Amino acid sequence: MNGKKRVTAGIDIGGTNTVIGLVDKAGRITEKTSFLTKDHKTFKEYIDVLSENINALLKKSEYYLDGIGIGAPNGNIFRGTIEYAANLEWKGILPAAELISEKFRVPIKITNDANAAALGEKIFGKAVNTDNFIMITLGTGLGSGIVAGGSLIYGHSGFAGELGHIIAERNGRQCGCGRKGCLETYVSATGIMKTAKELIPENKEKTFITEKNINTLTSKDIYDFAKKGDKFALRIFDYTAKILGKALADFVAFLSPEYIYFFGGPANAEDLLIESAEKYMNKNLLNVYKNTVKIEISGLKHGEAAVLGAAALVRQNLSV
Amino acid sequence: MNGKKRVTAGIDIGGTNTVIGLVDKAGRITEKTSFLTKDHKTFKEYIDVLSENINALLKKSEYYLDGIGIGAPNGNIFRGTIEYAANLEWKGILPAAELISEKFRVPIKITNDANAAALGEKIFGKAVNTDNFIMITLGTGLGSGIVAGGSLIYGHSGFAGELGHIIAERNGRQCGCGRKGCLETYVSATGIMKTAKELIPENKEKTFITEKNINTLTSKDIYDFAKKGDKFALRIFDYTAKILGKALADFVAFLSPEYIYFFGGPANAEDLLIESAEKYMNKNLLNVYKNTVKIEISGLKHGEAAVLGAAALVRQNLSV
Repeated sequence: MNGKKRVTAGIDIGGTNTVIGLVDKAGRITEKTSFLTKDHKTFKEYIDVLSENINALLKKSEYYLDGIGIGAPNGNIFRGTIEYAANLEWKGILPAAELISEKFRVPIKITNDANAAALGEKIFGKAVNTDNFIMITLGTGLGSGIVAGGSLIYGHSGFAGELGHIIAERNGRQCGCGRKGCLETYVSATGIMKTAKELIPENKEKTFITEKNINTLTSKDIYDFAKKGDKFALRIFDYTAKILGKALADFVAFLSPEYIYFFGGPANAEDLLIESAEKYMNKNLLNVYKNTVKIEISGLKHGEAAVLGAAALVRQNLSV
Repeated sequence: MNGKKRVTAGIDIGGTNTVIGLVDKAGRITEKTSFLTKDHKTFKEYIDVLSENINALLKKSEYYLDGIGIGAPNGNIFRGTIEYAANLEWKGILPAAELISEKFRVPIKITNDANAAALGEKIFGKAVNTDNFIMITLGTGLGSGIVAGGSLIYGHSGFAGELGHIIAERNGRQCGCGRKGCLETYVSATGIMKTAKELIPENKEKTFITEKNINTLTSKDIYDFAKKGDKFALRIFDYTAKILGKALADFVAFLSPEYIYFFGGPANAEDLLIESAEKYMNKNLLNVYKNTVKIEISGLKHGEAAVLGAAALVRQNLSV
């Protein structure tokens, strides 16, 4: 390696942008770039552009590439594929690892975004000293990655840990997955707005949130209103936290994690959503689990989590 | 070892009886005995009797003891203890492994009955070739053991996998654990009888099951009636299978197991409970898991599962 600095490429494939970062041993992102995921004729052409971008980063300094980790929607660790991802423009099963391996002779690993975030937390974040935790990523949906006994749980299909699609309310809200009552239809940026719309007709409090302006508001606005004392906004968060807290109590009966970490936009509502959900969780916990589980905000920075997580995916198999 | 036959002691501590079996390399129970769990003044005296029984079995032939595995209610693998077991007469935290280690200088492991059954299935039963499965034991309650990535999941507390206490119905039936709507209040021998009692007043079918005789019936009777075509009995099983199937769909979203095995009395209702639950599960499954998970009856024999499972607990750490 002749004194070259060893780095891992962490790649975050999103519906809009693809972000590439070179991550060093200590978990620092030393180089970073991004390009549009869309507007490539074929997936193969997209991989060509991805590879050019990786090479351009590597040339910026004397880097030695030791692996490529990819976080992508419906990324399958066993097959190295992206499978039927709803928000990518290429359909079917995409042989991502195979195509990239034609360009780079290094270990290549791929999984979904939330699993990558969980590994990022384990290797570069707060979860360094725990072997049993759940990572929950909140955004337009609710994603999750599970680490049990020190290992990420992939399950038989490679797709274990879809906790956004645990049924929170039987015959509840219609979910994009075709079923009803999934947790993410309540607990996510989208879910919070659905709750707001649903509760407006029965609201009797004075509020900034009305049928007139509801379609122009975001969940962040609802949070800001709540912080200013808007009682209806507070009720929306309480409603959300209660559903989340009860679901978390079930998660604990499954895995008995030491920590549950939250990441993503809505997790910034730490007081009104996360701490409140922790109270509801504790109220609903089976006795044997009392005082065994803590809820925390992720230790990963917002702009870095996806890339660090993707890099962690390869890093866990390398001697660091 | 001078030609002595190597065996592991598998011990099943139940509320009424304690069963001890010597298990050889191939998973055969070569010697077996049992004694009353109750009627010992102290836990220490109980352990004395247990040890005498183990020694008596060992003397029956030229056996070399390589380990002792124990399945017990609320057995904690990390501490080697039995903790606050509701159906044992000794209260608090019982240092089982410590007391036994004063008598035998071999590896000693302890966990709960359902975890032991899961290991038994993995080492001596149908799960030999799968690394991702859930074992569900049905009796008066619903117990479970989870194997993910080839390892039994103990979680941070040692008590992971209390799937009988996942909430199946929000604000549902009162559970012995103090909470409401736990899965085992619906899916267990007790749960089936509760369903029968609850549905009698609204039943319009001709049936053998009435308010007069309900307290003299067992879930096995309900099953026998159903097999004879009693429509109300069939409805009770359908009600139970539906709740179970929906819960299983959530379990799959958590772990993505390859198999879910059922063990215990009510599991003998293979057609009306287990196969029917599989149909309801498949109906409620997230798309990505379709055709990735199979439901089967345990491969362990009824009288042997607890002892084999307990023995498997030590066996997994020995070269076999």
